[in-house]
Amino acid sequence: MGAAAKGGDEAERGTVVTPSAEFPPLGREERAALGRIGERWREPRRPDDLPVDPTLGRSGRPPQPTRFGRLAPIEMFTVEEPDELVASGPAHLPGSRAGRLLSRARRALFGPPISSASVLYERMRKLVALPVLSSDLLSSVAYGPEAMLGVLVLAGGSALGLSLPLAGLLVVLMIAVGVSYRQTIPAYPHGAGSYIVAGDNLGPTAGLAAAAGLMLDYVLTVSVSVAAGVGAVTSALPGLAPLTVPLGVLVIAVLLAGNLRGVRTAGNLFVLPTYAFVVAVLALLVVGYARAAGRGFAPVSPPPVPAAEGLGLLLVLRAFSSGAVSMTGIEAVSNAVPAFRPTEWRNARTTLGWMVAMLVTLFAGLVGLIHLAGLVPRPGETLLSQLGRVTFPTGPWYVLLQATTALILLLAANTAFNDFPRLLFFMARDGHAPRRFLHMGDRLAFSNGLVALSLAAGLIFVAFRGTTASLIPLYAVGVFLAFTLSQAGMVVHWRRRRGRGWRRRLAVNAVGATLSGLVLLTAAVSKFAEGAWVVVVAVPLLVLLFRRIHRHYATLNEALALHPPATAPGPAGSAEGEELPQEVRHLVVVPVARLNRASLRALAYAASLGQPTLAVHIAPEEVEADRFREQWQAWGDHLRLETIVSPYRAVIGPLAHYLEALRSTRPELTLTVIVPEVVLRRRWHRPLHSRAEQRLRAALRALPGVVVTSVPVHLAE
Amino acid sequence: MGAAAKGGDEAERGTVVTPSAEFPPLGREERAALGRIGERWREPRRPDDLPVDPTLGRSGRPPQPTRFGRLAPIEMFTVEEPDELVASGPAHLPGSRAGRLLSRARRALFGPPISSASVLYERMRKLVALPVLSSDLLSSVAYGPEAMLGVLVLAGGSALGLSLPLAGLLVVLMIAVGVSYRQTIPAYPHGAGSYIVAGDNLGPTAGLAAAAGLMLDYVLTVSVSVAAGVGAVTSALPGLAPLTVPLGVLVIAVLLAGNLRGVRTAGNLFVLPTYAFVVAVLALLVVGYARAAGRGFAPVSPPPVPAAEGLGLLLVLRAFSSGAVSMTGIEAVSNAVPAFRPTEWRNARTTLGWMVAMLVTLFAGLVGLIHLAGLVPRPGETLLSQLGRVTFPTGPWYVLLQATTALILLLAANTAFNDFPRLLFFMARDGHAPRRFLHMGDRLAFSNGLVALSLAAGLIFVAFRGTTASLIPLYAVGVFLAFTLSQAGMVVHWRRRRGRGWRRRLAVNAVGATLSGLVLLTAAVSKFAEGAWVVVVAVPLLVLLFRRIHRHYATLNEALALHPPATAPGPAGSAEGEELPQEVRHLVVVPVARLNRASLRALAYAASLGQPTLAVHIAPEEVEADRFREQWQAWGDHLRLETIVSPYRAVIGPLAHYLEALRSTRPELTLTVIVPEVVLRRRWHRPLHSRAEQRLRAALRALPGVVVTSVPVHLAE
Repeated sequence: MGAAAKGGDEAERGTVVTPSAEFPPLGREERAALGRIGERWREPRRPDDLPVDPTLGRSGRPPQPTRFGRLAPIEMFTVEEPDELVASGPAHLPGSRAGRLLSRARRALFGPPISSASVLYERMRKLVALPVLSSDLLSSVAYGPEAMLGVLVLAGGSALGLSLPLAGLLVVLMIAVGVSYRQTIPAYPHGAGSYIVAGDNLGPTAGLAAAAGLMLDYVLTVSVSVAAGVGAVTSALPGLAPLTVPLGVLVIAVLLAGNLRGVRTAGNLFVLPTYAFVVAVLALLVVGYARAAGRGFAPVSPPPVPAAEGLGLLLVLRAFSSGAVSMTGIEAVSNAVPAFRPTEWRNARTTLGWMVAMLVTLFAGLVGLIHLAGLVPRPGETLLSQLGRVTFPTGPWYVLLQATTALILLLAANTAFNDFPRLLFFMARDGHAPRRFLHMGDRLAFSNGLVALSLAAGLIFVAFRGTTASLIPLYAVGVFLAFTLSQAGMVVHWRRRRGRGWRRRLAVNAVGATLSGLVLLTAAVSKFAEGAWVVVVAVPLLVLLFRRIHRHYATLNEALALHPPATAPGPAGSAEGEELPQEVRHLVVVPVARLNRASLRALAYAASLGQPTLAVHIAPEEVEADRFREQWQAWGDHLRLETIVSPYRAVIGPLAHYLEALRSTRPELTLTVIVPEVVLRRRWHRPLHSRAEQRLRAALRALPGVVVTSVPVHLAE
Repeated sequence: MGAAAKGGDEAERGTVVTPSAEFPPLGREERAALGRIGERWREPRRPDDLPVDPTLGRSGRPPQPTRFGRLAPIEMFTVEEPDELVASGPAHLPGSRAGRLLSRARRALFGPPISSASVLYERMRKLVALPVLSSDLLSSVAYGPEAMLGVLVLAGGSALGLSLPLAGLLVVLMIAVGVSYRQTIPAYPHGAGSYIVAGDNLGPTAGLAAAAGLMLDYVLTVSVSVAAGVGAVTSALPGLAPLTVPLGVLVIAVLLAGNLRGVRTAGNLFVLPTYAFVVAVLALLVVGYARAAGRGFAPVSPPPVPAAEGLGLLLVLRAFSSGAVSMTGIEAVSNAVPAFRPTEWRNARTTLGWMVAMLVTLFAGLVGLIHLAGLVPRPGETLLSQLGRVTFPTGPWYVLLQATTALILLLAANTAFNDFPRLLFFMARDGHAPRRFLHMGDRLAFSNGLVALSLAAGLIFVAFRGTTASLIPLYAVGVFLAFTLSQAGMVVHWRRRRGRGWRRRLAVNAVGATLSGLVLLTAAVSKFAEGAWVVVVAVPLLVLLFRRIHRHYATLNEALALHPPATAPGPAGSAEGEELPQEVRHLVVVPVARLNRASLRALAYAASLGQPTLAVHIAPEEVEADRFREQWQAWGDHLRLETIVSPYRAVIGPLAHYLEALRSTRPELTLTVIVPEVVLRRRWHRPLHSRAEQRLRAALRALPGVVVTSVPVHLAE
């Protein structure tokens, strides 16, 4: 999709996550250009053999580890099978003492580094896949019904009766979207994330909009799930209520640490809590309906609640779209098709069917039971907890219900920790997100993405004081944007590809897209003022940002792309045009402030390169210039010296301008500026030095064809 | 005194301020070593003639200004008399648009740059020198008497009568210290600052203690003078009283701006306000005493004031040492001897005599008149203002008194703006203060020292809310420490040098030192709790800091000092020991992440140096390593490539360790690491890049003998 990946092997892209993604292979034309450039490569003189053995003794006997350096560095590398150096674990250790301590603390917290070879392509059985992929979806029933009733109750206790028809509508919507996604799975067996499906069929902008929606969704999944999970705990233990915010932040930090550590065996971890939650809620439903049957399904009349608002259309729509958050997570299976055992798409589709069936059962069952029990949302205790207390007046069942609820919500948040960095990885591979999101940390986790997610989710959680109700309005818009774009993309897909029964399939996806779109509109409009505006504003801004990032990478790639060399050799272009050693024309410039060991080292280094060399001295006064020239003579005048008097005492400015003036007379020159640099051991020594080399480097950055080299002098102290 | 200046020409040091001080001349041994090193200099091959004309066409016809670059840089330089390039004004302009705007704003505020040749060695007539040097001293009578009475009044109105004997004691002290300083002047005709006198005779630590005392004194002079000046204004216009703090900060900012601009013609500026202040106070005294004579010098009895404290010895001592702040500034003449017309020391001595006479007259006259008028210090109006209102009930004389008081206090603060950076300059020349205080800004002002003073004084002013009374306790200790050390230094001086009448001179200075020392002790003990403890703690800490700074510079100078080369040539030492080109053994290493134009440029640059070159690729996986080697073959395998697999995906760490391992096998090698660097035009693009070159540079800083070179590629965008 992006220029960055145009040259890459299409099959290799897919949804496979690999550490090599940071090093994309060359495209066909670039490869050809590389060969052409190589043919014309001439070196001014053939260099001698290397003065060291670059294999570190791999091919012969190993060299003795010396006492040089702080560590015996030879031991940092091992020789692996194909006769190749491999950096061993300790090669990570930074040099300074503080750095090593930090590194040890990191290792204690996150575990030892994991080799690239350990990337797991684990395949899941359906019975494992179901809990892993459904925790996000099923956990939504812990807050979805309450979100809907919480809006309805604003119009007074009598309006709560509307929950039944609204729930019916939502069930229809769930089934429609579920069926729609079932069709997507076989069409995109390598993974059918909304970013990919929408991008493929509707163009990059639609893909980015879906990605932006999903990214916001993942961030909010963490915030909402953690808020609801903490809510489940504080409902059972009201004494903890004042600690909501720190508890939530702690949970996010633990999730971050766990994911930075890399939860490899996550699959099995998910099985028990998810099934336990389902069992607990099913038990609740059975007991609850049995009791209701005992009194002939006569609903308990809810306590009188005064109406805060009139029961208008807008309120009903708001309630509907709040209830729709129960559907978040339905897209999880389609992202994860390659993780199933073969035949992947068939197993994935079956699992999706089960998930939707379970969702409908739990959701409809809970809404109905709440209605029968005459419960009303109230602050301080979740509806699920109220229902639990009514149904299991005492004892372990209530505790089990609350514990599994908290646990499944935690797992739901963890799902976002898996999906958000993966999404960023795919976007970065296309050049739509910063490249650092391609990098896998030393525990094979996408550390940068994990940290970004935690920061965003943590900030939102704190900003909203961890209250689920105020987070819900932001939630639905992003998800349904992604649903809509994905389904609409499938409509286009069928129209293009056709194939057997394409009209029916198109119709199904069109219904899915239309319904999702309606919910999207409903959510955006009815909850605009409550917070949905944040998402409505953020999505276009994010898309704009992604496009700007993509444009930058495209420019960069174009600038760095290899082109076959021009046929005519020669010094025609500017210095930066040259890719062949014989075309580089050198001038070495050594700025010298005073003659001491550091500057003499720089001069010796410069002269030893055997290129034309010029020394420059900037003097504040004529007197000083004369004195310096006289010293230069005393030294032996081995190199050409040019003295510039800077009567206004600036050094960096005149030097930069002088170099620019030199280059303007011969634009094809490559100027190598060699500055001595005293390397200070202590940070507090820095203000004692002018750090001219850094300032010079900064001043010369803008000049093309100027190479800055610092020759270090280390202080013993 | 310091090792930094050991080699310098002693006569050149003195108290002359010169921009060349940043470039100290070589000592005799270093010069000799330089010649010896030069004799052994051999280049591997004689470089060709330079490919450009380094004189920018000075010797021939000037080259045509080209369109290259953002400015026509040739015009940045002019050719002056001795056939030399001189950077003209515009050579200051920084490249970016924001930088140029800033530069223009600077120029509007501070004026165009001033050439080094304009350093003024202005000589002052006595009648000009008197007001210039006495503003600090004479302005003290605006707050000195009040400071004394403000302490006495704590013991009730009756204790105020003690002011007369205390004033008598202070007059004796003033005369003793004045006479003592009169002797110092001819002994140190090149300037007799306490730092130099104490350092010369009592050792560096005493000099540094005197310097620390003086530095604190200068900072407090600014704070106290500005506070008292603002007090003079708010006494006349009480409506401005709430604005005390912002007014004071504004005054300090204006003083800073004026001094950054460089007040060259400052001398004449001082004449009028100082004489006007003296005239106004003398008029006050004449009219006041005439009135008092009219009623037979019968003192008006002061209003009854309840006693807050008992009248103990400590209180009297506190009052005495508070009154002693009237003497601050008495050292000004001795610092400035070289600024007088010849014979300098004689004119300086005469001027000091006048100053002390005027101080005694004003101080004693004011204390007496306040006593006769029965005035009592009270918040909201200064005593001088009260006296003015009593003596000149209405009309322009009162306004004149307040206006000249405010003005002379402003000038007193300005004196500190002259002296503080000069003191830092001398300390920096000896290596006791950061070298940046040697640098004269483009307006020939010591910008760094001025900014440091303003920040310190402003912070103190704000911290004490601009109230003179609470600042006074901090004030006396620093000054009298400098007085004591300076006079004690003179005692040692006479004992060493002897000469005509040395016993008498020694006795005079001994009396001065003893009295100053007693006041110092009195002030430190009696006002310890009121704030003097700050100074008592700060002085040793500052001395410690100065000594640490000096030690760092000494280490540095030793490390960088030139030594004659060892007789035996050869590759015995480590790479950083070499100062001769024939001793430098090169190995060029090019880390290559991927093959693109940037890395091919870096490879071409490396190969064009004609030194042994090794390319290194760090691969995250074996697969990627194979792919890269295959590309390398496609390119033509022109350079030796070593591939390192980093299974934990770190790049910088393994690379740094590999280089360390290479060097450990041949410690005499100089490793030149050449990295391509993409130069980004916009700041927001930075997070999109890994900035591996910066991280590599930071990682390799600690390794000796490793030179890092970045070959830039500029993006067109």
